[in-house]
Amino acid sequence: MVQILNRGSTRTSPRAQRKTEARRAEILRAAARVFRRKGVAAAGMREIAEEADLSPGILYYYFSGKDEILQYCQDRTLEHMLAAAEAARATPASTPERLRAVLRAHVQAMLGELEGATAHLEVEALPEGMREAMIAKRDRYEHEVRALVAEGMKRGELAKADAALVTRAMLGAVNWSARWFRPDGKLRSAEVAQSLADYLVRGLTK
Amino acid sequence: MVQILNRGSTRTSPRAQRKTEARRAEILRAAARVFRRKGVAAAGMREIAEEADLSPGILYYYFSGKDEILQYCQDRTLEHMLAAAEAARATPASTPERLRAVLRAHVQAMLGELEGATAHLEVEALPEGMREAMIAKRDRYEHEVRALVAEGMKRGELAKADAALVTRAMLGAVNWSARWFRPDGKLRSAEVAQSLADYLVRGLTK
Repeated sequence: MVQILNRGSTRTSPRAQRKTEARRAEILRAAARVFRRKGVAAAGMREIAEEADLSPGILYYYFSGKDEILQYCQDRTLEHMLAAAEAARATPASTPERLRAVLRAHVQAMLGELEGATAHLEVEALPEGMREAMIAKRDRYEHEVRALVAEGMKRGELAKADAALVTRAMLGAVNWSARWFRPDGKLRSAEVAQSLADYLVRGLTK
Repeated sequence: MVQILNRGSTRTSPRAQRKTEARRAEILRAAARVFRRKGVAAAGMREIAEEADLSPGILYYYFSGKDEILQYCQDRTLEHMLAAAEAARATPASTPERLRAVLRAHVQAMLGELEGATAHLEVEALPEGMREAMIAKRDRYEHEVRALVAEGMKRGELAKADAALVTRAMLGAVNWSARWFRPDGKLRSAEVAQSLADYLVRGLTK
């Protein structure tokens, strides 16, 4: 991640760096649309460039290839989720409330701008050299959520259950939303986030 | 499906047909192990033959290619799930009880023998000509589960919520289990099935 964000940073001003980041985020959204339409495997740099309204040369200035776009996409989504989980753990609210906040943030990170969406889930689509770090980060996130669930059970705020299994059920349910959510559908991403979080935490409240 | 099951049926006795079906099921389990190990896209007929301890020639007698194996795998899993959902709707038990039975059967169909597992979820991996029928069958299954959820809400046995969204959350949670379940892990598939069903229905009980 550091390597990505620092690209060219030795030569550019903070303002130029912010501009680069904004452009990279734009490219990401375009790439997400292509990934969604064609699947990650079939998407090509040429199409991503077209969708982003850039020449392929300019696109390659921002990203070395599709793998780097995918890595950036997954990393960004996971960073959002991790930040939300860490913030929730540091908050004095009740565990059900904190857990709902984490799940809402998770759904929003995936569906909000469709940046992550399905591409976020396909760690296997990354080349081997990039996969390990992403899996480690994903595991760290899962660990954070599980710790919150386990804490709630220990404190008696949540019903006793297998914390690891329930955490995976929750994450499965929210991850799956990337498969069926349609930005032009009846529900907004914020509504999906709220309803999923309510339902999933309800299964553990006493 | 009919076309697949009837392969060669005009010339063979019922006993020979049963034998063929048993051999196809064996091949399926071998294929599922290869799909799991390498991913559906990278798996080849040669490896499936090796895993099933068959010559490629014999393998091609039973299946025309990887696509047909994948189709058979998905179809079989969905047929199990549909049968369970239809049986549950025809049963006089309470809705929470029937819903738990459907979810348990779903998890078991996916994890029980690892026949379906991840391959079951990858309808997109089928060639276009095979995809539509499978999507229709999957939709029919989702519709059955949703009807059960909606019925329970209408009867006052389940808390009111968006039945379509909750159904998708449930299916997402159970489908996700194919991603993390390890046959050599601590939990048996029956335990996973039971715990997931309990937790997911608890989120709707009053």
